[in-house]
Amino acid sequence: MSKNKQFVTAIADINENFPQWYTDVILKTKLVDYGPVKGTMVIRPYGYAIWENIQNELNKRFKKSGAENAYFPMLIPASYLTKEAEHVEGFAPEVAVVTHAGGKELDEALIIRPTSETIICDMFAKWMESYRDLPIVINQWANVMRWEKTTRPFLRTSEFLWQEGHTVHATSEEAEAKTQQMLEIYKEFAENCLAIPVFTGKKTEKEKFAGAVATYGMEAMMLDGKSLQAGTSHYLGQNFAKAFNMKFLDKDGELKYGWSSSWGVSTRLIGAIIMAHGDQRGLVLPPVVAPIQVVIVPIAMHKEGVLDKANELKKAFEDAGIRVTLDSRDETPGWKFNEWEMKGVPVRIEVGPRDIENGKMLAMRRDTLEKIELALGDTNAVKTLLDDVQVGLLEKSRKARDSRVKWAETLDEIFDAVEGKNFVKAPWCGCRECEDKIKERAAATSRVMTDDSVEGKTCAVCGKKAEKVVLYARAY
Amino acid sequence: MSKNKQFVTAIADINENFPQWYTDVILKTKLVDYGPVKGTMVIRPYGYAIWENIQNELNKRFKKSGAENAYFPMLIPASYLTKEAEHVEGFAPEVAVVTHAGGKELDEALIIRPTSETIICDMFAKWMESYRDLPIVINQWANVMRWEKTTRPFLRTSEFLWQEGHTVHATSEEAEAKTQQMLEIYKEFAENCLAIPVFTGKKTEKEKFAGAVATYGMEAMMLDGKSLQAGTSHYLGQNFAKAFNMKFLDKDGELKYGWSSSWGVSTRLIGAIIMAHGDQRGLVLPPVVAPIQVVIVPIAMHKEGVLDKANELKKAFEDAGIRVTLDSRDETPGWKFNEWEMKGVPVRIEVGPRDIENGKMLAMRRDTLEKIELALGDTNAVKTLLDDVQVGLLEKSRKARDSRVKWAETLDEIFDAVEGKNFVKAPWCGCRECEDKIKERAAATSRVMTDDSVEGKTCAVCGKKAEKVVLYARAY
Repeated sequence: MSKNKQFVTAIADINENFPQWYTDVILKTKLVDYGPVKGTMVIRPYGYAIWENIQNELNKRFKKSGAENAYFPMLIPASYLTKEAEHVEGFAPEVAVVTHAGGKELDEALIIRPTSETIICDMFAKWMESYRDLPIVINQWANVMRWEKTTRPFLRTSEFLWQEGHTVHATSEEAEAKTQQMLEIYKEFAENCLAIPVFTGKKTEKEKFAGAVATYGMEAMMLDGKSLQAGTSHYLGQNFAKAFNMKFLDKDGELKYGWSSSWGVSTRLIGAIIMAHGDQRGLVLPPVVAPIQVVIVPIAMHKEGVLDKANELKKAFEDAGIRVTLDSRDETPGWKFNEWEMKGVPVRIEVGPRDIENGKMLAMRRDTLEKIELALGDTNAVKTLLDDVQVGLLEKSRKARDSRVKWAETLDEIFDAVEGKNFVKAPWCGCRECEDKIKERAAATSRVMTDDSVEGKTCAVCGKKAEKVVLYARAY
Repeated sequence: MSKNKQFVTAIADINENFPQWYTDVILKTKLVDYGPVKGTMVIRPYGYAIWENIQNELNKRFKKSGAENAYFPMLIPASYLTKEAEHVEGFAPEVAVVTHAGGKELDEALIIRPTSETIICDMFAKWMESYRDLPIVINQWANVMRWEKTTRPFLRTSEFLWQEGHTVHATSEEAEAKTQQMLEIYKEFAENCLAIPVFTGKKTEKEKFAGAVATYGMEAMMLDGKSLQAGTSHYLGQNFAKAFNMKFLDKDGELKYGWSSSWGVSTRLIGAIIMAHGDQRGLVLPPVVAPIQVVIVPIAMHKEGVLDKANELKKAFEDAGIRVTLDSRDETPGWKFNEWEMKGVPVRIEVGPRDIENGKMLAMRRDTLEKIELALGDTNAVKTLLDDVQVGLLEKSRKARDSRVKWAETLDEIFDAVEGKNFVKAPWCGCRECEDKIKERAAATSRVMTDDSVEGKTCAVCGKKAEKVVLYARAY
């Protein structure tokens, strides 16, 4: 490849045209490509490896919390969707429908799961006989399909990958506690693995999941000041239990309906990572989920001993559990620097003849672009550096975010704040009309309700007594 | 639960009614359940955990071989299927078709992938510009859909989970080598992880994959003497390259078509494990893929110190990387023994007051039902025992299988052999008619062609000069 090629792959200006920057980065780093059917994506190896790391981290946490993985059929009888009134209203407009199979028209149309509450609750009903069978806490990694009009890779695609947890409990308290527990796990995971600080809280009626009693969301600020819903946890009460006849014999000998929850995150998280940490050079990946944590670039590669030493370092890093690659391609170091910076590899290690002579190696942090001299082969120092990058990214994101959360007391202030690429906290009377007016005026939606005190506060829209403080933002 | 319940869950006689035995075992051990749509299955946690272990083992091997995981869209334009003539003929009759989505009829019908050669080759064509981009070696873990008339959980279901590897190379030699390499990986995996010996070899024209130049299969003998195709590796030549315009600029400056391969195994393997190792008590799981490798059953559980010691053992085993569970439920040891034997846990450890006093624990191997006294807390001995079970299962299966491979020189002998629950080797002239006659007379199909010499041999059906020795069997 030539300098020429490098020029061709320039990335749009991140400040002037953030959407184009996003598209350039995801395509040029080979995270993803467009599939042949409109609205679909191909997750390429570099993108899929991030997803695998996300899966590993979440699986650890899910299993520790008592959840077990399982797999349910993708095709659901169309009639199932209609059993829960709000659920069908929410999902019917965007389902894909199988009408023919095996060369024949089907007796009953089947939908491709947009989410699996219906089919999983149907199975739970079969499996729960007595209180001894409860709780059932199951997670599924799967593809789902929602036919969307406007799509963008990772952020909104007709098919996406996700995990969906589904639980049923003997009491409402347990189901509510599970809903909260999973929200907490998501928050901890977002912060410690993705290095993304999130706001969590209850959604308004307007924004809740179709069929839930209450939806809790976690919202992350992207570099352009917009919010990305990064995960949700739903308390479903007995809505699905009643729709699917999920009954159990309780300790007191009575047949009762169970209480359920569901919770999920998706490949959207990859979009969140890109838009929370990237810069003009391209991706900036948090070490915990980066497919490659360290790239070794040999300097004056053909000089005696350099490649041998580079290979030795690679081996030592691998043995220490670091995901490392050695770039021994026949290109200039500068060309390689550009490529790996674009790909967001957290730490670059340069090693050349002089370094070897001096017993040193040069490390570069992708997040700060800082260069640090390390003792040659000091694996612990590299690990510490990776930890520093991970922590540094979270701190940097948190500071940037916190400086962009504004308070507003009027509709105009809400407009000004979101127009200035901020999140906005504003008091709210609790009525749908005021929420709609904010959407109309400022193109912002309520993200979550906060714990801030409303004492003495009045609704930013109608001026009536405030019931809650709401976090508003423009959103992906 | 009561003795009564135990009686209710009796398993059909494995020798008299093997199909019913299979159904009883998979349902009663909660590996799987029937989904609401005919031909679909729900893979329950105990079954899915086996799949996760299979995935882990295969991922290790795939990654070492240079394959990278990725994900491609599930919905494929119907027109793609028609681009490769044999491929459409093979798969069109069993596809499921999406005709409506987002509340509208689609302009072009979409099929749910029955396999992904078409869409992946379409993407490969986009990604391969020059010889430098080759080979591309990608694996996908995904669900696929084939509308089957007769279904049975794990063995044949309309939707199943699998991995499908897809590769493209600059030369036919490389593509053929990859086809063989993956077949070898499958064989090594089947033997060392699943403890199932397999015959591998090329399939006849009749049995090959629709669109392949050559299909190589691995065939495993089940306890009833039938064969289960446990994996396939296809050399695709330039069939898909030409259909999808997969061209690259070669070193010599010429634009050439690539050469491709594909290979896969599926959740069928779980069925293979069950039917290769099970017995009248239920499942017998090989330690490498068993969700639970060791179950600790405390004896006289409520006596002082017993549960403490059992928990101590559990902790020690866990620390040693053993997948262990401690059954402290309020049931009799006998009841627990039955349950865990049915679930096929490879090693049971009993520990009671007298054992503790004597510094001993009692181990039972699920495969041989042998009881062995071990020093209390000797984790290494438990690991050795697990290794012994793993190796023992493979040896036992291999001996049993080898004693049931017969030679036949005539159609009648072929019939007698398969009727007697054997595999049969027989010389074959190479013509389709003779293969069809064997199917008609003996309900057996050619599984793979073997390396046995045909010198002086004549076709068991027509008596003409033999070209190949073929392995025949009744098959799942």
